[in-house]
Formats: sequence, C-alpha cells, structure tokens
Amino acid sequence: MIISTIASHSSLQILLGAKNEGFQTRLYIKPRRKAFYSSIPLVDELVVTEDMARILNDDGIVIPHGSFVAYLGIDAIENSKAKFFGNKRFLKWETTFELQDRALEKAGIPSVEVVESEDVKPDELYFVRIEGPRGGSGHFMAYGRELEEKLEKISEPYRIERFISGAYIYVHFFYSPIMDRLELFGVDERLVIADANKRRPFKSLPYIIVGNKAVALRESLLPKLYDYGLAFVEAMKELERPGVIGPFALHFAYDGDFHCMGFASRIDGGSNASHWYSALYWGKSMFMGERIAREIRMAINEDRLEEVIT
Amino acid sequence: MIISTIASHSSLQILLGAKNEGFQTRLYIKPRRKAFYSSIPLVDELVVTEDMARILNDDGIVIPHGSFVAYLGIDAIENSKAKFFGNKRFLKWETTFELQDRALEKAGIPSVEVVESEDVKPDELYFVRIEGPRGGSGHFMAYGRELEEKLEKISEPYRIERFISGAYIYVHFFYSPIMDRLELFGVDERLVIADANKRRPFKSLPYIIVGNKAVALRESLLPKLYDYGLAFVEAMKELERPGVIGPFALHFAYDGDFHCMGFASRIDGGSNASHWYSALYWGKSMFMGERIAREIRMAINEDRLEEVIT
Amino acid sequence: MIISTIASHSSLQILLGAKNEGFQTRLYIKPRRKAFYSSIPLVDELVVTEDMARILNDDGIVIPHGSFVAYLGIDAIENSKAKFFGNKRFLKWETTFELQDRALEKAGIPSVEVVESEDVKPDELYFVRIEGPRGGSGHFMAYGRELEEKLEKISEPYRIERFISGAYIYVHFFYSPIMDRLELFGVDERLVIADANKRRPFKSLPYIIVGNKAVALRESLLPKLYDYGLAFVEAMKELERPGVIGPFALHFAYDGDFHCMGFASRIDGGSNASHWYSALYWGKSMFMGERIAREIRMAINEDRLEEVIT
Repeated sequence: MIISTIASHSSLQILLGAKNEGFQTRLYIKPRRKAFYSSIPLVDELVVTEDMARILNDDGIVIPHGSFVAYLGIDAIENSKAKFFGNKRFLKWETTFELQDRALEKAGIPSVEVVESEDVKPDELYFVRIEGPRGGSGHFMAYGRELEEKLEKISEPYRIERFISGAYIYVHFFYSPIMDRLELFGVDERLVIADANKRRPFKSLPYIIVGNKAVALRESLLPKLYDYGLAFVEAMKELERPGVIGPFALHFAYDGDFHCMGFASRIDGGSNASHWYSALYWGKSMFMGERIAREIRMAINEDRLEEVIT
Repeated sequence: MIISTIASHSSLQILLGAKNEGFQTRLYIKPRRKAFYSSIPLVDELVVTEDMARILNDDGIVIPHGSFVAYLGIDAIENSKAKFFGNKRFLKWETTFELQDRALEKAGIPSVEVVESEDVKPDELYFVRIEGPRGGSGHFMAYGRELEEKLEKISEPYRIERFISGAYIYVHFFYSPIMDRLELFGVDERLVIADANKRRPFKSLPYIIVGNKAVALRESLLPKLYDYGLAFVEAMKELERPGVIGPFALHFAYDGDFHCMGFASRIDGGSNASHWYSALYWGKSMFMGERIAREIRMAINEDRLEEVIT
Repeated sequence: MIISTIASHSSLQILLGAKNEGFQTRLYIKPRRKAFYSSIPLVDELVVTEDMARILNDDGIVIPHGSFVAYLGIDAIENSKAKFFGNKRFLKWETTFELQDRALEKAGIPSVEVVESEDVKPDELYFVRIEGPRGGSGHFMAYGRELEEKLEKISEPYRIERFISGAYIYVHFFYSPIMDRLELFGVDERLVIADANKRRPFKSLPYIIVGNKAVALRESLLPKLYDYGLAFVEAMKELERPGVIGPFALHFAYDGDFHCMGFASRIDGGSNASHWYSALYWGKSMFMGERIAREIRMAINEDRLEEVIT
C-alpha cells in the first residue's frame, strides 16, 4: 500500500508516519524543491513535476494538507477518483466565511466579533481577515480611522473583526472513526512577521506565517477546548456526512475567554511543532502525520479502510 | 499502590508518570471536566465530584500540584492524614511574601527590588505583584504616576517591585532524597495575555498565564542557576524539616543579572512544556510527573517510602 | 576513545551524544561551574582548571563549540596538535565581516544590506552589528538620528545594517563527509533581552542572548534554506579545504525574503533547543551533539577517521 502526498506544508511528518507504519511513500514535488526532499531517506517514489494535479489520479491513499486546495482547487479534489484519507467534502469548510460560520454556530463555539463598517470607531483597533486560508497573508490590523483607505486596496472578500489583545492559539485534534475517539494532540502559537514588534517601536506589519511554536497550554483550559472539539465533530457529522475523519484544528484568540477565529479542515501546519499530548493516548508522543498513518493501518487491519477514506 | 491527584494544573504528566512506573491512578475531577480526562486511557479510577477535599482522605499516595492550595487550603492539607508525596509543610512557603523572602534570604538568592510607596518616581515603570500564586492574575505593570489610582482598587496584599526589562524564566528542579541529588530539569517562559503587545501598539494588559514555552537557556547560565537550586535545598532543610522533597521551581527576571521573583514549592505548571535536560540524568527525557513516579518507585524498591512522603 | 570538550555553550548535548555512541568523555571546566556539571552522570573525567588552554594538548577527539574561539583564540586552535572534530581552519570564518562576506558571496546567499554612514537617514531604523560572535552583546538597534552619538562609544569594528522587521531564524545543518550528505537539523529563534519589549512600552534594550526556542518553520521555506546550505558547503570546499565537516548554522532575517546576517562555523548554541527534523534522516530525533558522535563512530567503523578530524 502506498501513501501519497504533495511536497509542502506538513508532508515531512506525513512521510515519517507512513514509513513508521510500514507503508510505501510517493511524493509529488516541484523541480525546484527536489534537493531538500531527495536528501531525506523516507521517500520511495519522487514524482518530480510542475503539475501537482497529477496526484488526483494517484492509485495510493492520498493524504491532503493545507496546500491541496491552493494547488488543486476544491472542485477537482471533490471530483477526483483518487482515494483521499479523510472526508474530501469537509475540506471546503474552511475556505469561506459562510461555511466557517455555519460550522461554528452549529457546534456552539463562540466566534470573534465581526464588526460592520458603519460601527467602526476611529480610535479602536480592528483586524481585517481575508477569506480563505492563505498563511496569514493579506490579513492586517488597523485603527478604525485607517480602515477606509486600507480596505480600498483589497479585492478579495474580507471581514472586519474586533481586534483581540490576547494569546492566539491553534488547537490540534484527531478524530478517529476506528476508535470513535477524539484526541487532543497539542497547541501551537504562530510566528508571524508582525511579531517583529517585540523588538521595535510599533509598526503595522504583515501577518504572514513564518513558523509555529509549541505551547503547553495551561491545563485548566484544556477541558473546555476538548468540549469544543467534541461539539465540532458532532456538528460536522450532521453538516457534511460522514463528518470529520482524522485531523482538524480550531483557532482561538484568548483574552480570558475563547474567541474562535476559524479552523483548519485538514492537518494544520501548526502540528509541525512537536507536542507531547499524544503520549497520553499512545504511550509515546507522535506527530499528526504519524497518527494518520496509524489510523490507516488500524483500518486496514480491521478491514474497515472504507470508513476512513472518501 | 495507587497514585492520586486532582484533575488540573499538571495532572496529565503526573498520570503519565504513574502509569509508566506501573502504578494505579486515581483522579479527582469536577463534572464539567469529565469529557476530556475520560478520553485519556491513563486513569484507572475517576472520582467525579464537586468536592475536591475528598482527596484529603485518599488512601493512595497523593501528588500535590499548583491547584491544591487554591482548592483545599494550606491548613486542611497540613492536617490531612493522607500520604502526600513531598514535604506537606513546604507547600505554604510560596504563599506569602514573608515566607518567600525568608527562604530566598536564607539561601542567598538575589531578589527583585521591592520599592516603598514613598520612593516611587512618576516616570518609572513598576510591577505590582499580588501575594500568593494565582496564575499571574491581578499582577500588573504601571508607571509610577498611575500607581496610586490603580492600587486603590486592590484589596489583597501586594507589593511594588522595580520593573525589570529582561527575560522572565522559570527554572525547574527535582531534589531526590533517595539519590541525594539535585537535578535541573528545564526552563520555561510563560505565555501571558500581556504578550499580545508583540503585535499591537503598547497597552497595559493582564499577566494571566495562558501557557508555557520551553527555553533552551544559554548553557553558560546554568551553573549559576544550579548553585541557586542547591542553596535553596540547603536553606529549606533548616527552615522546614526535612526540607524539599521532589519538585520545585525558582522564578527569575534576567537582565544580565538574575533577580528572583519567587518560587513554586511544588511541581510548577511550566514543567508541562517539554524539555530535555532530564536525559542528562536518565538517558531519555522525562517529565517532572514521570520523575516523581520514578522517585516513589525507587523509594518503594529500597523500602524507604517514608523518606519521600509526609 | 575519548571525546573532550569545554564545559559551556553546547557541551551538554556533546556529552550526551558521546555517551550514546559509547565514547569516554572528558570535560574541561572552571572551578565555579563544578557543582552543576558534576551532578550529571555523563562525564567520565572532569578536568577542573582555570586554564581552558589545557584542552589544546588533549589526547582525545576535541569537539569545538562557540566558546572555543573566545577562550583559546583562533591561532592557538589552528596551531594546536590536538585532534579536532571538523575543519579547524573553518572556525575563523565566522569571526570577521570580511571572511563572512567572502563565504556568503561565494555561495550566492543574499545578505542583509550594509549601510554606509553617509547614507543613514534620521528617521529610519538601523541595526549596528559588532564584529565577531559575542552572544549578541554589543549589537543594538537605533534610529539614524541616534547613531552618531551611540557609535562614538564603540571601540570594536562594527557595521550598520538596514533594520529588518521580520522573523530572525537560525538554521542548523550537519554536513557529513562520511555519507556525503547535508542534513537540515532544525531552526530556532533567539530569546534576547530586547524581547522584553513584548510586555512594555518600547525601549532600546540589549540584544544579549538568554536562550533559544525551537521553531517549526513553514515547510515551504525549507527547500530554499536547504539550497543555501548546499551552496555554502560547496563554497567552503573551495575557500577552505577540505571545507565544512559537521555542524554549521546560517542566520537569517526573514521579512518575506531571506537576508543572511551571518553564520556559525561550528555547532551553534541554538541547537540546544530540541527539534525533530533529524528523525527524517535517522528515524528518531537526535541533538547535533549526538550527530557529531555518530559521525565519529561511523568514521571509526569505516576506518576513515582522518576525514572528519583536523
């Protein structure tokens, strides 16, 4: 059995997991990225191509990640005959404000406050979020008095949120249909260009993500987050059958209360930061990519593979 | 043999350690936290109750952590007949400025400068610390000119410290009576709400702790910190017999010099962030919770359990 | 076979690696640092002395790190008859702007922009970098209008760089002559005193390094960094034969583009933060100090030790 993915985002941990669980691996990769990925002895087959869409005809089990929608488009993925780990139709839920809102409302997870243009006050801070997951690029923070001028330059759909002065945390979950268990895998903080303000007089800077850093969240905050995770899984069972299969992440601003900013409807890049909660479930810590391969292995062993692929 | 604790603060790593060392586990837990903790296959017995004081009659070995004093009170703990890992009477030493000062002075560890109200200067920054460990809640930073108004709203004991512009680091130690060895386990940085200033124009924000992040401290700073740890262990041997047993943490502001801000007289929540120095002592990295269970196991094997419980 | 080093910088992971690979260990240590290092059961021979230069006559394999040049001087190291792991003559390349520039230019790695005094503008931010690796001490940030006064106080060679508002990342590599393979080991961020600005109104503060924190870099940035690493290895093969052997690090500011600020021509202190990419090459994560010991072990097994020492 072959596990296939695209060389980017979280493919390293996907490869690591696949080899740990005894699978063959196939990696679709752009030519300019070849030196790095070919130095790693975890790839059995390297498909060097500019055309990432070739993975849509792959004959293995395809593990989607955060670069898939950008490279391939939602429609091509949903219409593909390739076997995807997880629920193919769940992938689109992170891509629009409308679907995000519907999922979070159904789950009863409190969201950041969206502000209408007419309610903007000149001296308050706002956060402008561009629709779709784009690695933070395009999002920005501004005072109300600056908004009109800045918004004129934006051509994509966006919305204005109340800026929250707090910690921004990204919570990684894995829902296992095979074990019927939700696992809380870890929490990370993004490192973004705007964090440069920790060493300079304040300046408005881009929110482009540079990397991720593991956070050991205060333990007393975890039960609430786990409840949100459970509620999300339940909501998606109704909204997009058969619901969530495998990894997802909920994104929160926390200022004493949790305010959900969105979610990842697939493995989140923040799971590249190593965290240890998986040891609570599995005796040793493992990456989300390893957990995915474990789920596939268990499904195969129990002859239930069709329950984890679509 | 059963290891018991309360579901909060650092109980996850305590459970992990207990199972690793072959103990049964018992967890006292509030009903609203049940979903998360019952998803984790490390708990043999879940005591779901609103009354955490039931742990004071537990017949296993109780591992106290940072939520115990808040939930149970010092007196109830000291008068409890339950067997506590560590020195029950050491727990109170972090709870008042007076005891903290006495311990640090005895150990010769340099402290942050406390400023008297009459010496406050209008344009300098100060840090107001509320007595007792409270997850940072209530502490605040202010200019001298703002102090009078802000202090009027405070009903708890507090003190005014010189604000230190530096790194705030939390150093985790384990003193083993069985091996007569002090182990330096790791260092963390707190993630607090006030850190939101790394992405916004400065605003005074609460110091509520959200989580912890591991820091690999510059190696040349470790020997000095280890000496402080040794001095602390020696001081407590005289101040509160039999002294420290097991985990404690020293909290420092570092601006080129170390200024001690206080300590944790039990496992510190910052040990939830994974660090690797334990591998120096034990061949593989382990959490403080695992180290505690290891100490109990060694004590049982050498028939010296009474040396590590009170 | 004995592995020897000086007690500082990254010696803990060097000791850990040496013992893992079955070597004896010898540590040269100043008396005041003895308590900490002698608590760690990884040191077979502790040479307690104020005179670190004694390591220059060591009969084992000496692993140099970031404190060697400061303690011993480049000339003494190059003239020493002791067997050093790595290319002794490569160590000096990080110590002057001239050598750094020559290496980076040869490798084609883009550097931070150096600004001539006459081009300084009053209201722009600059970063003044002192020559040589000094743990960040002496470097500072300033507006153009402040530069003249601040520069008058500096007696060492320095240069003025355009200040980059971005993430500062340190990328750790290991080049193996035995396997003819470059491995990307991980990325860290420095924790410096100046980061205190994340909790206070801005103030110019020192860039003294306090510690290091692991960053899981956005995966799409890694192939470019790996290419830079490869180019650096190729350049050094020509500039200082036989070129790089073992660990080095490239230091970047990233604001959407990479700007190289310098490099470490030996194991970098940032590798003390634990990262997991080594698992991609070796099945389990290991520290740079462990990787060094592994290389020596492989070299001995293949009777090629002379290829990794000088």
